[in-house]
Amino acid sequence: MQTLYMEEFKKIVGEENVLTSHEELYCYSYDATPGYSHLPEAIVIPENVNQVSDILKTANQHKIPVYPRGSGTNLSAGCVPLKGGIVLLMTRFNHISDVDLENLVVVAEPGVIVGDLNGMVARHGLIYPPDPGTVATATLGGTIAENAGGLRGLKYGVSKHYVMGLEVVLANGDILHTGGKNVKDVSGYDLTKLFTGSEGTLGVITQATLKLVPAPESKKSIMAVFKNLDYAGKAVAGIIAAKIIPATLEIMDNATICTVEDYAHVGLPLDAEAVLLIEVDGIAEVVEKEADKVLNVLKKNQADDIQVAKNDAERDRLWAARRAALPALAKLRPTTYVEDATVPRSKVPDFLRAVSRISKEFNVTIGTFGHAGDGNMHPTIVCDIRDPQEMDLVKKAMNEMFLSAIKLGGTLSGEHGIGLGKLPWMEQQHGSKAMEAMKAIKRAMDPNLILNPGKLVGEC
Amino acid sequence: MQTLYMEEFKKIVGEENVLTSHEELYCYSYDATPGYSHLPEAIVIPENVNQVSDILKTANQHKIPVYPRGSGTNLSAGCVPLKGGIVLLMTRFNHISDVDLENLVVVAEPGVIVGDLNGMVARHGLIYPPDPGTVATATLGGTIAENAGGLRGLKYGVSKHYVMGLEVVLANGDILHTGGKNVKDVSGYDLTKLFTGSEGTLGVITQATLKLVPAPESKKSIMAVFKNLDYAGKAVAGIIAAKIIPATLEIMDNATICTVEDYAHVGLPLDAEAVLLIEVDGIAEVVEKEADKVLNVLKKNQADDIQVAKNDAERDRLWAARRAALPALAKLRPTTYVEDATVPRSKVPDFLRAVSRISKEFNVTIGTFGHAGDGNMHPTIVCDIRDPQEMDLVKKAMNEMFLSAIKLGGTLSGEHGIGLGKLPWMEQQHGSKAMEAMKAIKRAMDPNLILNPGKLVGEC
Repeated sequence: MQTLYMEEFKKIVGEENVLTSHEELYCYSYDATPGYSHLPEAIVIPENVNQVSDILKTANQHKIPVYPRGSGTNLSAGCVPLKGGIVLLMTRFNHISDVDLENLVVVAEPGVIVGDLNGMVARHGLIYPPDPGTVATATLGGTIAENAGGLRGLKYGVSKHYVMGLEVVLANGDILHTGGKNVKDVSGYDLTKLFTGSEGTLGVITQATLKLVPAPESKKSIMAVFKNLDYAGKAVAGIIAAKIIPATLEIMDNATICTVEDYAHVGLPLDAEAVLLIEVDGIAEVVEKEADKVLNVLKKNQADDIQVAKNDAERDRLWAARRAALPALAKLRPTTYVEDATVPRSKVPDFLRAVSRISKEFNVTIGTFGHAGDGNMHPTIVCDIRDPQEMDLVKKAMNEMFLSAIKLGGTLSGEHGIGLGKLPWMEQQHGSKAMEAMKAIKRAMDPNLILNPGKLVGEC
Repeated sequence: MQTLYMEEFKKIVGEENVLTSHEELYCYSYDATPGYSHLPEAIVIPENVNQVSDILKTANQHKIPVYPRGSGTNLSAGCVPLKGGIVLLMTRFNHISDVDLENLVVVAEPGVIVGDLNGMVARHGLIYPPDPGTVATATLGGTIAENAGGLRGLKYGVSKHYVMGLEVVLANGDILHTGGKNVKDVSGYDLTKLFTGSEGTLGVITQATLKLVPAPESKKSIMAVFKNLDYAGKAVAGIIAAKIIPATLEIMDNATICTVEDYAHVGLPLDAEAVLLIEVDGIAEVVEKEADKVLNVLKKNQADDIQVAKNDAERDRLWAARRAALPALAKLRPTTYVEDATVPRSKVPDFLRAVSRISKEFNVTIGTFGHAGDGNMHPTIVCDIRDPQEMDLVKKAMNEMFLSAIKLGGTLSGEHGIGLGKLPWMEQQHGSKAMEAMKAIKRAMDPNLILNPGKLVGEC
């Protein structure tokens, strides 16, 4: 980048908010996805919407790529500065400006940590439901741009169900306001939903109006062990067929069970084909009633061992196994790919079987856990990125896995986004016509292709 | 239109499915919005997606305007063939192809009547929640294209919360598939949500995958009369603050109360400033608990008379008053404009007061009823469209009313759409930058501007 442009950015945000040392550039060259890295030319750190607008005007004029970034916890390489240019670091946008108890909404900036937002609204007995695993570090902006989900997706949905309005800066510097505090709003195209999940490719989010919901007054957790995967699948289907929508309905496969047991010694049987972890929440009477129905379904479907948490300590113990899944798998090998291929809920057993077959076929270690209730699986491949022969097999296994999900009516991503990581399979999922429509939207909103270029919809 | 093109359409759908008599053209020249009418040149009635694709290819090539249409119950003139061309009548797309109980979704065509769909899924103990007043006549396609809502919006949301996937034909004839049966899906831009509520301006919906939810096992209805509007407003806020989300939370203002009483003699006091009608639903224990909480809030907020329905007959009696609101108002004068300006829930009393003031200032009769819980009001103007002097005042009152809603942080439309009716205020709500972004999307998806041209975003 020419020094000239750098001077323009320094004028906008102040010299101290433009980072250019090699160490700093390196820190922003990657995110939480293994295998993707590229140095940016500068990190620019604005503190208000007018600065963002001025930065984008300059970048647009000179066709400088811009990568909006929060905490960089992205799992699909969405933050990687693939084509140089500037990282637009949004962490100074960290204000929560309006907790509106009458309308049950909060207005917050994109740099706010999701966990901090939840801490603040909890005082009022409210929750902001999206809860990605990185809730303690991920920023709101990142979770909105990626449409992040989490454990409670089955009952509570994902980020897009809670984003009611946005302030967004377009590539040309235009500042837009979409949506607002209205529960019902059909005025114009739904730009709010278009920007949510657009992975920084259509605009930079500078403020969000978010829906809050009352915190459940009661919860009950149940763990069930299955010797047979099919019965676990039938139990999941049976719970839904009983008209129960649990807050969480998690599954772990045999590979994950064995790894977790070896790591955490929580007492899981090594021959179990699946463990289900179910939590129902709501008002106390409902929770009791629903928990009883869940137990009936589990018993009817040959669960070999069922444990019900009687108090918070027991609840924590049951969840320790699920929480150990990712760290236990990650400890096995130097490199961890957490994928999030998602299938319709009824296809979960088919998908788990396919992953197991692929794992054997390519001799690649894959542990699968995830959100069985909403079909959002996390097949986790552990390997060593320094071994080209192994990585060749990993790539082949990954290809098979994504094609299997698509074949089952599934999707490449339930909550981690496409970024660069899943780009190769986008046309197979959506078809060339839908890809062309998405690219047409990208070109319409960002004609010079400066916003997170090459991601999500690929080259335009 | 030249006879040549007409022959092409006849070749595609068969001669009997192209209507051109004056009587037929007249029938499709208007919808349920007073004051808008324009003759199309033909009605073309396809029966499958390939026919729709061929029709659009022909229309696109010759720049013939195309107006997709279901039952024509539109309340914002969205169906009016403003610029001639062809009405694309979708009523032959009336199949429900897949009720998937494992995934709680149904796949249906756009010509299916919403009430019929609900009748079918009710057999399985499920509901498709969007329930516009026209549920017995409106088609799915129209309700999706308009993002229709209804009485249950507060708890259950509107159409877009239930549309999981779409088959859509673009202006150039391309057939796209968006979304699917996956509860979580963040792969690509959310085209499903972009088409939902796009009022036929971006593509023609030929199939929809819809989310279903378990029908509530129990319901309880409560009516409360308030002498003072402020207390009614406080009661609405109090119910939400008590963390209760009723299925319906309806309000009628004094003008509506007086008209309903005169029409239906249900025993409403003529000096009441507001009546609230509240229904909680869910499992029986919750319903009892929530109804008690609602009663407490009503009593604390000086409700003058409270009635609780003890059985279905009493429930029907309470709801008779609310159901009478529109027919009672419509009977007063020859012309009825049902608007749906929506404000954040906390601003409902301010908005009702503004409407009352505007009604007096312009000497226009406006009765307001609507969905207080979600701020979606229905200020209903009754007048005589044949009286130009009165219509001049009506237009001025309408202008003031929409500007008031926008000033209160509201939106032009909660559930009826923009069409032509609310186009004049779009820029005031969204600003020129957001309007330009919407137009850029329209041009990207429909470069020849053949799909429902001039609506929603206006001239491009």
